[in-house]
Amino acid sequence: MKKVQVAVLGATGMIGQRFVQLLEDHPYFEIGGLYASERSEGKSLREVMKLKGIPFQEDTLSMRIETLEPKAIAKRCRLAFSGLPSDVAGDYETSLAQEGVAIFSNAASHRMEPDVPLLIPEVNPDHLELVKKQATYANGGFIVTNANCSTTGLAVPLQAIYKKFGLSACYVSTYQAVSGAGYPGVPSLDILGNVVPFIKNEEEKMEEEIYKMLGAYKNGKVKYAEFDMIASCARVPVVDGHLESAVLKLGKDANAAAVIKALEAYRPEPQKLKLPTAPVRPIIVRKEENRPQPAADALAGEPERARGMAVSVGRVRESKGYIKFWLLSHNTLRGGAGGSVLNAELAVARKLL
Amino acid sequence: MKKVQVAVLGATGMIGQRFVQLLEDHPYFEIGGLYASERSEGKSLREVMKLKGIPFQEDTLSMRIETLEPKAIAKRCRLAFSGLPSDVAGDYETSLAQEGVAIFSNAASHRMEPDVPLLIPEVNPDHLELVKKQATYANGGFIVTNANCSTTGLAVPLQAIYKKFGLSACYVSTYQAVSGAGYPGVPSLDILGNVVPFIKNEEEKMEEEIYKMLGAYKNGKVKYAEFDMIASCARVPVVDGHLESAVLKLGKDANAAAVIKALEAYRPEPQKLKLPTAPVRPIIVRKEENRPQPAADALAGEPERARGMAVSVGRVRESKGYIKFWLLSHNTLRGGAGGSVLNAELAVARKLL
Amino acid sequence: MKKVQVAVLGATGMIGQRFVQLLEDHPYFEIGGLYASERSEGKSLREVMKLKGIPFQEDTLSMRIETLEPKAIAKRCRLAFSGLPSDVAGDYETSLAQEGVAIFSNAASHRMEPDVPLLIPEVNPDHLELVKKQATYANGGFIVTNANCSTTGLAVPLQAIYKKFGLSACYVSTYQAVSGAGYPGVPSLDILGNVVPFIKNEEEKMEEEIYKMLGAYKNGKVKYAEFDMIASCARVPVVDGHLESAVLKLGKDANAAAVIKALEAYRPEPQKLKLPTAPVRPIIVRKEENRPQPAADALAGEPERARGMAVSVGRVRESKGYIKFWLLSHNTLRGGAGGSVLNAELAVARKLL
Amino acid sequence: MKKVQVAVLGATGMIGQRFVQLLEDHPYFEIGGLYASERSEGKSLREVMKLKGIPFQEDTLSMRIETLEPKAIAKRCRLAFSGLPSDVAGDYETSLAQEGVAIFSNAASHRMEPDVPLLIPEVNPDHLELVKKQATYANGGFIVTNANCSTTGLAVPLQAIYKKFGLSACYVSTYQAVSGAGYPGVPSLDILGNVVPFIKNEEEKMEEEIYKMLGAYKNGKVKYAEFDMIASCARVPVVDGHLESAVLKLGKDANAAAVIKALEAYRPEPQKLKLPTAPVRPIIVRKEENRPQPAADALAGEPERARGMAVSVGRVRESKGYIKFWLLSHNTLRGGAGGSVLNAELAVARKLL
Repeated sequence: MKKVQVAVLGATGMIGQRFVQLLEDHPYFEIGGLYASERSEGKSLREVMKLKGIPFQEDTLSMRIETLEPKAIAKRCRLAFSGLPSDVAGDYETSLAQEGVAIFSNAASHRMEPDVPLLIPEVNPDHLELVKKQATYANGGFIVTNANCSTTGLAVPLQAIYKKFGLSACYVSTYQAVSGAGYPGVPSLDILGNVVPFIKNEEEKMEEEIYKMLGAYKNGKVKYAEFDMIASCARVPVVDGHLESAVLKLGKDANAAAVIKALEAYRPEPQKLKLPTAPVRPIIVRKEENRPQPAADALAGEPERARGMAVSVGRVRESKGYIKFWLLSHNTLRGGAGGSVLNAELAVARKLL
Repeated sequence: MKKVQVAVLGATGMIGQRFVQLLEDHPYFEIGGLYASERSEGKSLREVMKLKGIPFQEDTLSMRIETLEPKAIAKRCRLAFSGLPSDVAGDYETSLAQEGVAIFSNAASHRMEPDVPLLIPEVNPDHLELVKKQATYANGGFIVTNANCSTTGLAVPLQAIYKKFGLSACYVSTYQAVSGAGYPGVPSLDILGNVVPFIKNEEEKMEEEIYKMLGAYKNGKVKYAEFDMIASCARVPVVDGHLESAVLKLGKDANAAAVIKALEAYRPEPQKLKLPTAPVRPIIVRKEENRPQPAADALAGEPERARGMAVSVGRVRESKGYIKFWLLSHNTLRGGAGGSVLNAELAVARKLL
Repeated sequence: MKKVQVAVLGATGMIGQRFVQLLEDHPYFEIGGLYASERSEGKSLREVMKLKGIPFQEDTLSMRIETLEPKAIAKRCRLAFSGLPSDVAGDYETSLAQEGVAIFSNAASHRMEPDVPLLIPEVNPDHLELVKKQATYANGGFIVTNANCSTTGLAVPLQAIYKKFGLSACYVSTYQAVSGAGYPGVPSLDILGNVVPFIKNEEEKMEEEIYKMLGAYKNGKVKYAEFDMIASCARVPVVDGHLESAVLKLGKDANAAAVIKALEAYRPEPQKLKLPTAPVRPIIVRKEENRPQPAADALAGEPERARGMAVSVGRVRESKGYIKFWLLSHNTLRGGAGGSVLNAELAVARKLL
Repeated sequence: MKKVQVAVLGATGMIGQRFVQLLEDHPYFEIGGLYASERSEGKSLREVMKLKGIPFQEDTLSMRIETLEPKAIAKRCRLAFSGLPSDVAGDYETSLAQEGVAIFSNAASHRMEPDVPLLIPEVNPDHLELVKKQATYANGGFIVTNANCSTTGLAVPLQAIYKKFGLSACYVSTYQAVSGAGYPGVPSLDILGNVVPFIKNEEEKMEEEIYKMLGAYKNGKVKYAEFDMIASCARVPVVDGHLESAVLKLGKDANAAAVIKALEAYRPEPQKLKLPTAPVRPIIVRKEENRPQPAADALAGEPERARGMAVSVGRVRESKGYIKFWLLSHNTLRGGAGGSVLNAELAVARKLL
């Protein structure tokens, strides 16, 4: 199989560079070009590198940044992974799709549009069909988005529970890593020895996106899920890994043991298809009394193949008719670049590319 | 007015030393002796000091630790502040009360006993009357407890809201400082760049103590409050100050503005009595979009007289019929030693001492 | 005595706001105006506040930022404290001095000019006389600079030792706080759980400024001190307080006890004059085996009047013919705004204002 | 080749568990047993695990801890890796060597004994011959030690420089990670947002061990190196990786470029022998202006095979006749367990096992 040439948009940012990391040696995709604003034109990836301590290949580090010219990108790449900032992504991604490029985007701009999939292959693979409703689809161009980083980590175990037991309410408080704000992002003076109980627009996204993602797809439409989703978001002095405290009121009675069983039994489409970026188990249920922890568990949990793509769940317990648990996911892998790469793999598996 | 001689029990620990800090130059109380286990007998406070960066007086630092001999303490001190660890405090405090000493304790041991006040003067001052039911009261001895540190910070604004609007549910997730675990307490390897989503017995205490504290006192008994109290507790890499994310379902409809108004208008007994350790305002409602924060607000908020005794509340907002807010309190002052000192001041004001 | 009206330049930055903090209720000076670039014109200090957890007065927080128009400033203020960034400070301070304003600057721009005092009142008070050589002096305008933050902390104990024992070499490695880089300054992704062994131009400043400061003033000139000054500078995840490891080769033999004695006996001019911002003791020699520490000692050491203006020295010890010690000073107080305020107080005492 | 059965002593501690990590799938060695004090007897490795986030194999995690009975160990294991605490290691290791076991120890107890190699294969491989002088050698038993963690990182580049240019003085200040103190080790209250300028006995070890390691081996004896070695040691809030600031006075004139060339050209015995745990390059010279950094470089630098075993050197520069540089090494791998495993591999290569 010949590899698909792909563009990485926003290659000077942290999400962009996570895309690059995941695309080195990818079995389906090959990096056709790195793109960013004119400010970085001609610089090597090495010069603009934000990620530290990750062994990139020399060839990759020597690649030069090119400008975001849609026609030039379309000529070379069938597909683009977008780590563009949201204020740029909206119009730009639309115009690139018009050139016939399939876009897998981490930006928030198009997420809530009715014909754009807000996709997590482990949660709502059928939503991918929405792209066929997009005006540019006939031409080969379309847009698929991954969810907000903190919503993603929640959506995976929540879907496993929602499908089995229903749900009347979900109360979540987050403990989010600084890498979620990009680079330079959060000033050290704000977060050293501190917690900041505010992340712009984050609670709004969590309280809205989850309904679409857990919604049922039918006849080209998504019917939003209905329950009380209440989110409170804070930034903590952690580098990678969003931890979340979840309290659920289920649709029917179930104890913690039943919930654990449902989480462990959950085997959605990417695992059945063995997509390259899919972790062996999408949800890892930890049994220790004090896990998951970002410093220990953000990257994996399982030795096999998680590479930051599994969601770790721990301390599943019941209290006064509620189910409580903690969850952790890697915010720039599972909740960012990794999510979109997996989305693209699903598109390949479903013959959309 | 002649100052009351007081004992500090557990003077080698962090809470004990916070007691000492608050009792230097106290208008009602004078430190009569510092007490701890035999291991520290004869050492100066300077040698066993755990708190750093707080300017203690030379005289205080030279005081010697004595052993916990009840009769000797009772001979010298009318009152004792207890920072003893819970596994020791239970029996010991009972036997010291039998010697006629009034004990104001930070330990959990006696909190849930029906005739022991679990007291926050801003929340349930009437509960202090419970001491009259204690067997040792006739003799001058009794036990008053302050609440768990994270419950305390919550109880103050919750009471202001509960009294005004009623309450059907309260969902709380905590972001707790390491000083709450004492010294040496949390190993740095566990918490640097990390969050630990587990604190032993903490959720149980929060889900239980709040009902007693918000309960109505009548005819020598406390009738527990009734609502869904659900807590999830985590440790974060912060030195002082417990931050909490609260989501409330009120008993009757109220928007965020009405809740803010109730919080700001709240003027309970310690403020009316102008007790020495009481902050001018028990609740400080912050209007910034990203406060309160431990590093900025744990000690105060208001310039006047808070000294770590006020509870800061911020981001009061509504969503889908719920009220959300963040609160912050200093865990070893408001939520520890300061709470018990204020309890003792109330006891003086109510002529129990 | 009528208070002197003073301007604070760069009032939107951290050093500017430290100036404001120190000038509230100052016995000699009164804030006549807050100045910054046009971007902040008309905003209140509250809106642009970078410092957290410091109780400013309501009146101060309501002051409005004005633009840096030299003539307007000169009309209202006899004196200006400058927290301007170095790329702006050079020309601007010169033109403001031409308007007859005495400038006490934290910027590096003019430090090494032969007729500009690089002043620490505890180290080289006579250097202040240099201002009389400045072209604008006749007109009332002149420039006095304080040293780089890490050089300042070193210069105080070094001068005490140099005067007594001479010096052939000084090897210093620094552990510098993030507040030294201003706000937003150091990105959290660079410093959480990390040390960055590089601070732009910092080693160069330390290896150069110290010779001027320890130089002898004679006949309107400073003769530079001569010894090997070697510096290595690193940033650590600490908020306030620069810690430094110093190794000295003295000019004549002396053991640690003799050095400690010299440090403790040191009583320079600001202490003799009892200048308002001068700490009671300029050098606090700590005897514990593990101090000074930023989190414990940056603000003081002594209870009396240090307020971040003393230099703490600890672990003075000898090894193989060398003297080793650790020193700590508050980088934005002693090593920043506080230094310049003390400089201005010395100028008042010496009738230059 | 049949694998050698090895014992891991002190398997409940962090160094012990690093040994286990390195011995899983080792080409020469196989874990024959895990040993610790009686307190942990019978527990599984999983139950006593201190390291987090490292994927151990299920089989390994299920191994049971046995007690430190010398005869039983000798019966099963030809070789022992010792992560025992120094207060236990001294006598114990002696008695185990008497049973004919070859011991590769991380403990300080025997390091300075004249017939015990203080060995870094990249620095002083010939010193290994010293074991032949040990009384127990005839019987197959002997003791080899690795150096103190902060001395190890320094010794590798220092030897490369010393051999080429000579050395008259070396001034080092350290920035040491908390994992160096083991678990629970450094309390979080001591190190969050702080630096502690004291590590017990660390400066003494650095100022002494380096002379032995850089000493010349001749006729069964080590002639100590001679230069001024001066060390100052501090603990910083970093998890893994000791950073050090070094200032050298060379024996003959050389500029930074010449030093860099010598460092990069250095190819000692383990690299020539391609020992399994040896990194491809023992010293990685970084060219960025702000590296090495613990969070980015502790594990490697090079993609190939470093796994925490290379020493990273950066910012090699000259000033006033001195050479300055920064170095970083992983304190529990290169400076701990990894060092001893490499020592044992050298012993195999030299037919001592």
